[in-house]
Parts: sequence; C-alpha cells; structure tokens
Amino acid sequence: MSEKSRITLGLIGTGRIGRLHAEHLRFRLPAADLRVVTDLDRNSAQACADRCGIPRVAADHREILADRDLQAVVVCSPTDTHADIIEAAAAAGKHVFCEKPIEVNLQRIDRVLSAVAHAGVLLQIGFNRRFDANFQRIRKAVKEGEIGTPHQVHIISRDPAPPPVEYIRQSGGIFLDMTIHDFDMARFLIGSEVEEVYATGGVRIDAAIGEAGDLDTATILLKFADGTVGIVENSRQAVYGYDQRVEVFGSKGSIQAGNNYPNTCRIAGAGGVGRDLPLNFFMDRYTQSYLDEMAQFLEAIATDGPSPVSGVDARVPVVMARAACRSVQENRPVRLAEIEAEGASG
Amino acid sequence: MSEKSRITLGLIGTGRIGRLHAEHLRFRLPAADLRVVTDLDRNSAQACADRCGIPRVAADHREILADRDLQAVVVCSPTDTHADIIEAAAAAGKHVFCEKPIEVNLQRIDRVLSAVAHAGVLLQIGFNRRFDANFQRIRKAVKEGEIGTPHQVHIISRDPAPPPVEYIRQSGGIFLDMTIHDFDMARFLIGSEVEEVYATGGVRIDAAIGEAGDLDTATILLKFADGTVGIVENSRQAVYGYDQRVEVFGSKGSIQAGNNYPNTCRIAGAGGVGRDLPLNFFMDRYTQSYLDEMAQFLEAIATDGPSPVSGVDARVPVVMARAACRSVQENRPVRLAEIEAEGASG
Amino acid sequence: MSEKSRITLGLIGTGRIGRLHAEHLRFRLPAADLRVVTDLDRNSAQACADRCGIPRVAADHREILADRDLQAVVVCSPTDTHADIIEAAAAAGKHVFCEKPIEVNLQRIDRVLSAVAHAGVLLQIGFNRRFDANFQRIRKAVKEGEIGTPHQVHIISRDPAPPPVEYIRQSGGIFLDMTIHDFDMARFLIGSEVEEVYATGGVRIDAAIGEAGDLDTATILLKFADGTVGIVENSRQAVYGYDQRVEVFGSKGSIQAGNNYPNTCRIAGAGGVGRDLPLNFFMDRYTQSYLDEMAQFLEAIATDGPSPVSGVDARVPVVMARAACRSVQENRPVRLAEIEAEGASG
Amino acid sequence: MSEKSRITLGLIGTGRIGRLHAEHLRFRLPAADLRVVTDLDRNSAQACADRCGIPRVAADHREILADRDLQAVVVCSPTDTHADIIEAAAAAGKHVFCEKPIEVNLQRIDRVLSAVAHAGVLLQIGFNRRFDANFQRIRKAVKEGEIGTPHQVHIISRDPAPPPVEYIRQSGGIFLDMTIHDFDMARFLIGSEVEEVYATGGVRIDAAIGEAGDLDTATILLKFADGTVGIVENSRQAVYGYDQRVEVFGSKGSIQAGNNYPNTCRIAGAGGVGRDLPLNFFMDRYTQSYLDEMAQFLEAIATDGPSPVSGVDARVPVVMARAACRSVQENRPVRLAEIEAEGASG
Repeated sequence: MSEKSRITLGLIGTGRIGRLHAEHLRFRLPAADLRVVTDLDRNSAQACADRCGIPRVAADHREILADRDLQAVVVCSPTDTHADIIEAAAAAGKHVFCEKPIEVNLQRIDRVLSAVAHAGVLLQIGFNRRFDANFQRIRKAVKEGEIGTPHQVHIISRDPAPPPVEYIRQSGGIFLDMTIHDFDMARFLIGSEVEEVYATGGVRIDAAIGEAGDLDTATILLKFADGTVGIVENSRQAVYGYDQRVEVFGSKGSIQAGNNYPNTCRIAGAGGVGRDLPLNFFMDRYTQSYLDEMAQFLEAIATDGPSPVSGVDARVPVVMARAACRSVQENRPVRLAEIEAEGASG
Repeated sequence: MSEKSRITLGLIGTGRIGRLHAEHLRFRLPAADLRVVTDLDRNSAQACADRCGIPRVAADHREILADRDLQAVVVCSPTDTHADIIEAAAAAGKHVFCEKPIEVNLQRIDRVLSAVAHAGVLLQIGFNRRFDANFQRIRKAVKEGEIGTPHQVHIISRDPAPPPVEYIRQSGGIFLDMTIHDFDMARFLIGSEVEEVYATGGVRIDAAIGEAGDLDTATILLKFADGTVGIVENSRQAVYGYDQRVEVFGSKGSIQAGNNYPNTCRIAGAGGVGRDLPLNFFMDRYTQSYLDEMAQFLEAIATDGPSPVSGVDARVPVVMARAACRSVQENRPVRLAEIEAEGASG
Repeated sequence: MSEKSRITLGLIGTGRIGRLHAEHLRFRLPAADLRVVTDLDRNSAQACADRCGIPRVAADHREILADRDLQAVVVCSPTDTHADIIEAAAAAGKHVFCEKPIEVNLQRIDRVLSAVAHAGVLLQIGFNRRFDANFQRIRKAVKEGEIGTPHQVHIISRDPAPPPVEYIRQSGGIFLDMTIHDFDMARFLIGSEVEEVYATGGVRIDAAIGEAGDLDTATILLKFADGTVGIVENSRQAVYGYDQRVEVFGSKGSIQAGNNYPNTCRIAGAGGVGRDLPLNFFMDRYTQSYLDEMAQFLEAIATDGPSPVSGVDARVPVVMARAACRSVQENRPVRLAEIEAEGASG
Repeated sequence: MSEKSRITLGLIGTGRIGRLHAEHLRFRLPAADLRVVTDLDRNSAQACADRCGIPRVAADHREILADRDLQAVVVCSPTDTHADIIEAAAAAGKHVFCEKPIEVNLQRIDRVLSAVAHAGVLLQIGFNRRFDANFQRIRKAVKEGEIGTPHQVHIISRDPAPPPVEYIRQSGGIFLDMTIHDFDMARFLIGSEVEEVYATGGVRIDAAIGEAGDLDTATILLKFADGTVGIVENSRQAVYGYDQRVEVFGSKGSIQAGNNYPNTCRIAGAGGVGRDLPLNFFMDRYTQSYLDEMAQFLEAIATDGPSPVSGVDARVPVVMARAACRSVQENRPVRLAEIEAEGASG
C-alpha cells in the first residue's frame, strides 16, 4: 500500500466505539490514513490522538468536513447528531461511515439518504455483526442454498447486563437500542424483507427499567415477504454472558451458530463437565467484525464499490422497531406498511 | 415382584403404539401382568398376542372392560373412540392409560373427566415426552431454581417427514396433531398456565398438505400467566431427522437440551467434521420415555398415587390448539379464556 | 418367534453380571428360553429365578450340563472355573457364552479351545464393549475406509472408582483385569494383530493398591502388524465418571467417540457452562452392549454362524496383558512372540 | 505509550515468520519501535520494510547489532545462524528474541546460554504455542490444582500437510522440527521435567519422506520426574487440517483443549451434521499466540522481568528430541541423563 493510495480519513466522536475505530484505522488497516479526530470533549479527542499517533485534533466536526485532503469521515458522535453530520459530510463530498442508527424520524432519514444519493458519496452504516464470521457463514449457507429455502430463523440476542437506567431513559427503548441489531441481522441473513411484526415483552430483570418506560425482555415474531417466519429473543441480562446465537432452518437442513468462547477447553471434575463462560463483552465478541466492517468501508471507497450496509439498511430496522413498539402497545401484529404510511406524515 | 402384587391389564388397540406398550408391559415391566389384547383387526391383535406371549385375545373392548380380574386398561384405539372407552372403563372401575388426545370437543372432554372423577379411577394421558431424560432434566432445573425464574422458553419440534396426506386430512390439523405435544411440554416445563397464543404458519413443504386444509410449518408464541414467553417452532419435515430441542432461559441462567444421536462419534475428513444424523424415528428417540410413562402408570396404581399426566393435562392443550387455529385464521393473539367461553356452548 | 425355534439356555453364576444376562434373556430377547440357573450361593440363584420367572434352579453346573433339553450355557461363574466349565460344556455338546477371561495360563487356554473345536460348539467371549454403538461405528469407519488406512489409535479407559483392595489382590493385576478390555478393543477396531507392547504405570490413586502388588494408573503403547501405533490410557479412578473414549486417526481422517451422558442438557449460569457427569456405572454405560452381545450369541447359534468374539479373541489379550506386565517390570518393549515362546512351556 | 518508553528493535530475517513479527511490532504492539530489518535477500527485507513502514533496511545483522539505539533484536534467520547471532547480540548488549531451536549441539547451546548470562541480556525463545489461550487455560488448571495432581497428559499435534522433502532433508528430523514444540508443551503444561523418552514412528504418509531419512508419523511416551506419563501423537498430515489438541488427566478431573475453528456454525442436512474444518494454517491457528509472545517479550524488557521462555527452555527439548531419535533407532526407552552424559563430549 503506497502512501498515495491510502484513504484519508477524519473521525468524529472519540467515545468507546470511536476509539476502537481509531485504533483499527491506525494499527490494523494499512489502507487507512487517519489524520484527524475530534470530540465535544477535547481531552478525549487528544487522548485518542496521543494513544494512536494521530497527527491532529480538530476543534469540531466542521473543521474536519472542511479539510479538502480528507476523503472520508467516520461518525461516532451521539445519535442525535448523525443526520446533520451525514448531510454536511455529503455536501462536502466526503464518504461516510456512520454508527447506527441515523435517526428515528423516517422523513428525516429520507432527507439524509436523498442528500447522500445526490452527492454521490458512499454511506456505510455500522451494523458490524453482519461481518462476524459466524453470521457470514450462515448468510453464505442461505445464499448458496446449502440449507435449501429458509423456512424459520431464530435469533437469540442477550446482553450480559443492562446498561445504566439513565442510558435506557434516552435510548429510544429496547427495540431501537438493542433489537435493531437483530432486525438488521434477520434481513441480512434471509435476504428478504420483513412485512409484519408481532412483539411482546416485559420487565423481568429490573423494575427500574420499567419505571424508565422500557422493557428488559422481549420476544418478537417476524413475517418475511418470502414466507420465512423469524423469532428474536432479547434480554438485557444473561448472567452467563453475551448470548449471540442464530439458527436458520430450511428445506434442505439447518445451520446454527453458537456463542464464542475465550478458549476451547472442557474441564471434567467431580461436579460436572464444563467450560468457561462465553466471551462477555461485545468488544471482545465482535472485535474482528468491527475491524472487518472498516476494512470493507475502505475497500468500497477504493474500488468505487457499493456500500456493504447501505442507507436503506439503516432505515428499515427503524421501521421495524417502530412496528414492534406499536405491536407491544396494542397487542396485535403490525404491518410495516402501516408505519410507512404514517411515516409520510411524521 | 410376586405374582400377586402385579397389576393386571388389558390393552385396546394393537397398532404401532399399542404394540410398543404391549412389549413394554410384557418384557420390560415386571410389575405388569398384561393378560388380554383386542383390536378391530383381529389378526393384528392375535399377532401381537403371539409375539408377546399374551394369553388371550378379546373380541372387543367391551369384553376386556367386563373382565373382573383386570385392574387397568391401556387405550391405543383411534382417537374418536377414546371418550367412550374411557367413560365405559371408568364405569367398570378400571384405571385408564389413554393415548392423547381424549377428544377435541371440550364439553365432551369435561363429561369424560367428570365420569373419571366420579368413578375414582386413575386416568393417565400418553404425553410420553414428559418422561424423556432431557426434558425431565430441564423440568428439574426449572423447578429447583437452577436457572432462577424462567423468562423465555423455546421449543423446537420438527418431524423427519410428513405423514401421508390421507392421515393429515383426518388429523385435526397440525396444532391438534403435532403441536399438542409441544403445548403440553410448555406447560410441563414452566409449571405455569398459558393465557394467550399467537400462531402463524404456512405450507412450505408440500402443497398437498395445504390442499388438505392443513399447515406444514408453524411458529407459535405463548404468553404464560407467570410472565414467561414461549416459542414453538414446528415443521413437518426436517431432512436431517427428528428435531426435538428445548431451551429455557431464566434469571440465573439457561438450560438447553439437544437432539439424541445413535452414537457419540465425530468424523473428521478432508470435507469437514461431522457426525451421524440424530435419531430419526420417534420410537427410537423416545423409546425410554414410552417405557417410563408406563412404569409410572403402574406405580401410580400400586401406590394409589396421583396421575403423572392428568385429565386436565389432556384438556388444556386442546384449548391451546384451538386458540392457535383461530389465531392463524384471524391473525391476532387469542386468549384461552375466549376459547373456554365458547367451550361452554360447543 | 415360535416356542420351537427359541434357544434353550442355562445360566451358571448369578452374580451381578449373571443377573444382568438373566434379565436380558428373560425380558428382552424373545429368541431366548432361559430355563435354569445355578450358583454356589443357592439363595442368589433362587432370588434370580424368582425375579425373572425362571422355572428352575439347579444344584450345580453339572446338573445344567446334563440337561439334554438345553442348547447353550451362559458362564458367569468365577474366572478360575471358566476353563473347566467350558470343557465340560463342550463335552456335553452345549454352545457356550463365557465372561472374559477364560484363563491366564496359555497352555490351559489352548486345551480349552481345542476341546471347543473338537466338540464343534460355539464359544463366545463376553467382550461386550465390541457391541457398543460408538465402537461399532468406529469399527465400521475403519473397515469401510472412511478414514483411510489407520495410523494411530488412542483408547482412554478409566473407571469411576477403584474396586476394593481385596478384589484387586486376586484380580490378576490391572492389565488382566481392566486393560484386557482395551487390548481387545484395540485388535477389534484396527483389525490387525499387535506385535509388541511397551507399558508403564504407577500407583497414583491409592497406596494400598501398590501394597497389594498392583498399579492403578497405566499407559501402554502398542505396535500393530500393519504399522498402526496404539495408546491405551488407564486409570482406576476418574472422579468425573466412567471415561470410555476412543479415537482412530488415519490417512483420510479421524473418528473419535466421546463419553455417554444421561441427558443432552447444557446449563449456562454465572459460573460457567456445563453439563451433568457422564454415565458413571458400567452397567448403565454398556447396558445396550450387554444386550446386543447376547442377541448375537443367540443369532449365531440359530444361524450356525461364526462366533462374533471367538476363543482366539479371548486368548490374545491375555498374551498382551502378560507382555505388558513384563514390559513394566523390565522397562522395555516386549514382543508378543516372546510371551508365546514361553507359553509353550507355561 | 510515549515515544520515549517504546522498546527499539531490529529484526533479522524477513521470511514468513520474520514478516509476521514485523507486522505485529509495527501495527499491533504500541510498545514496540521496530526501526530496521535485514535479510540475506535484500529484496525481501526491502519489501517487508515497505509494507510495514519500517524506516531502514540494514545490509546485514552486524549493522543492526552495531546500532547503539536498538535495545533488542528479533532473530528469524535460518537455524544454523542462531547461535552466532545470539552470542554477537549478547556481546552487543541487546536483548534477544530468537525462533526455536537455538542449535542442536548441546555444547554449543551451553556456550550461547553462558554468553547470554554473562551479558545480562534477556533471551526469549519462540515457543509461541505456550501463549495460546487454550494451552494457557490448561496450564492455569494444572498450576492452580483445578484437576488435582496430574497423572497423564496427551498431546495431539498433526500438521495439515508435510513440508517439501527438500525442507525435511535439512530439518533435523521430525523430533527436532515438529515434536520439539510438543516437548516444550509437555514441560510447560505439567511443570515437571521429563526423565525418559520412548519413541516409535514410521513412514505412513509419503515414502519420499522415508527416503529422505525421516519419519512422518510418530508416537512418543514421556515419563516425568513427578510421575506423570505423557503421550505425544504426531503426524505430518491430517487431511482435515491442523490438529492441535491437549488433554491432562489428574486426581481431581481432566481438562482438554479442542481445535480452533473459523466459526461456530453447525450445519445439519440429509447427509449428517457437520461443521467446517478446523483452522488449517499455523499462522491462522496461532496468530494471537505469536502476537502475545512478542508482547510479553516487550513487557519483560520494560519491566526487567524474567524471560517467559528461557534459554533452558530452548535446550531441554533438544535433549528430548535426541533421546527420541535414539529411542526409535534402538527401540528402547532412553533416559535424558544418557544424552546429557554424552552431551559433555559433543
């Protein structure tokens, strides 16, 4: 990789995910030339720059977008800034990698996607789990017909522990905050769109979550256009660790992905036969997928290829999450078309 | 076991299941004294008697019920005869083991249960899967709090191949014929009643099944009184064999049962690492549970104990199956209370 | 199975294994007609007869051998009676099923085998593990070339707990008492003869075993005529249960058998992911193989077929055990031919 | 990590392993400052420097050793240069990371270790597998008594395919080239020294390997000072991939490590239940352990700590390999003391 052909980037937002992307861009991805970072918290940005040997800290995202030498930006700032920054980046002709979600208002999303399309820049959404080796393998099996026509998909997605209640209060709720990854996974794995959602949930872990207006446990049934039926099981707390499994059943067989473990060891003692807990933290579990999504972003820019996770991929799970919310409120299956029809007016 | 203390039995219906019970009673259960069998097909009854060394073949079930030396009957005749035979057996003071279901009409079931209660005989229903070592282990884990309070239960139940369409035509439909076992399993494992059912299904395996008015693939969501949410995934055809798995997730962990295999061998070759298919036939998969349910029937008689699978256990899954049918028809969650309210009038 | 075609048998020795065979012959094997049992302990024999509904108890094995109506005998008496009883049974024209080993003196074994051959009766040795589904599957893989030409075989064979020291004192030592099963397994799986043995062992579990002149832990290396190299790992005590595993590696792959478990459940909790212990008791672990060896004995008699476990199969593992003993004593590899050469003189 | 505190290094030898270390030092280990590389093949060195952004290419290792700004060198040159380079590096006061083995002549090794000790520099040997998560977990279990006192250890180590015969011809033979890793692993896991080796092997994969004077299949039995008995099973070719498993059995249980796989997916189809092959290439299988050994090298330098893999750790496996060679030649167990006694004279 000659200096010349490396992609020049700036990074906006040096929180936990931002720092991870910065390290990847600096130390793991020779195709990247990360030149500048910024954050509302100047100290955070400076610490990130120091740690990763990034030459410059910008005052704000505007300074980054105005830098003519940068080809792309990585947006890891708070969700409520995503739409504005993407629009501004597009206007500045920068390719954009943006953490999910773009926004919850569908009309606003549509305006953003329109701006991106108009500018002709690349927009990739941070649905990193798509790049996980297990789920890639399942997608391959489905796509290549290894298991025939899919009939049923079952997604288990449980966190090791709930986030602080203050976080939950502003998270948009379990469907937008947590299930949104599973909604994306469902579409990605099956390769067909979901038409209807029936969701149910409760407060089983911590009453404070309920008092904050959210659910901590949910089960969602999805009907796909191609006839597949999907199930998502969510919990804010699996005491044994981060529980991320998927199974797709089809006309010629099934494929299932289990959890990832820190080692392959089994210990047999007088009390039973066991193994250590699964990887417990999403950054350990999905380290490689975070790296791979960024590698593909660089590759897409370099080859002028399509985005591996497009703006539409950001939009549809929001519609699904809103359908799930309404389904719980009204205890009935809700068609996505119903949400779309209203989206036109809000 | 002295001759005296053995339980004397007659068996009605020497089809596939009847013959299995006959062999168990004769060769595997020293506590049983199976003296007589009958079947509408006299040759079938005679062949069964010959094979198992059963002394007598009766002309019909009436002859068996009239035999004062018999303490109990095992009813394996066609479903539409169950209610009448149970009532007659109760009137004759015989304990009854009856294959599921008793009947689909709730009022009729209630009359049967009333007759059984009035006669003071034991009635055990053939939900054999409750006695399976895997599901017993899960029930134990739930009951003893090993996984804390249950939050979610997931039941996979897929047959290796669909039955003949002629059978399907008179089976009562997938929910009464196949899912009924899973409805029973859900109640058994969680130890709480289901209050609401949302079911969806389709014809994915064989159009002829659809033409016969049935579904071949179904996904059902169950809401329990205690807040647990359950999922049942059914298919009439898993090409890799009989797929019978369960997972319960709770506040302190989860427990999952996998399929049973003919051996524990793993073969690694240039093409992959694999193992033989799971046990493919329900009689191989559940051999031991068929034996154990009958052993417990004999034990309950001998000790004057309660029925391990009562008449209520026969009735509730029928209500669930009817709720599931309506849920599919009307695409909405259906409360069991709604079915019960109508049951009063049909 | 008509009464006529059933094989008539007597059983000698109603200890633990004798009772197991008696139950199988009476309750599980319709082809068997077990008519009489005997034991030095008359009460034991009577109790066995009562439990299994066996018509007659004989005073001793001579009475059984003299019974002209019996076609076969099952010999479960103490090891030091095996040779005499087999010879007498052969002289009486009875087919013989005999628990291993026949005898430890090679010349004596040879005289027994000669008597059997002369009488033209069937002799089957109780190496029941050959009939286990796991090991049958491995044998099939080797025989049919699924893993190509075998290069290495690894047999793990560990008991859950050591027998009483009094038993060990008269057991003939770990190689004759315990490893002999693994020596048989090695020959059976590979289908080639062992030519040389190098054995090492120690007292790691209980000093009392050492004081009784035995080892409680052993590792044995086997060289086969076809170039395969085998390893046997033995221990008198695996605290996690009965550890019976095998792996064969070959030019086209490998096959490995794991332990058998009481259920397939996995439990995940805050402390780890585990399962129950493997089946702990040889009668639970090998129930089916005990049944199947007897079924094949009956089948061999009925069809005039060859013995599935012949007299030679009884003899070779004794030679191997003696070579292993000497190898430990002299810390050098010992060829079986060396033992054979001496066998001629003792 | 400030620029100041980073460890300055030069790297000698830019073959496959050298390039891997270079990438790790440049892109993955912020504590490293790799400034210069060299190779007999100048183009190889230049290509490596270009790819990794390493500022300088030296004419030869002397130029690197003469560079006063470097604290440490990483030696990845051909084996026959190791001893000389380590001595020269020690004389120059550089810490040394050296790929195994140092040398096969024991007297020569001793002179090297003496030079290192005299210079007071750190010497770490590239037994990377010690740093693998699976084997670390086993070592922890043994060390902390999770499985009690170890009795038996079983190491499976098979390559996916043999190296070219030209390589084998100059490799020193299977024991020095391949088993040496397992000899190291045995000592590392058990934490006791091996006293005696009995080895056997053959040519089962490719006759050309035999013609080159080597074995392609070997089984080695190890006796440890603490009474543990070990088995190593080696093959130059496991068609299913890189087979690297270990099991330790002890008084309180056992621990076993399985292979590493590219994903956790299981596919069930009409032909069986399977998964993809294990990771096939040592650089994929042991990526993390290569990284971790280098991280610990840097850490040991930074903290003035002891070498995690010392010069003695390099020497002992060579003695073991020589004992194994002799054991095969003379078909007898060979004590390490015997090799040592001769080592004094060559």
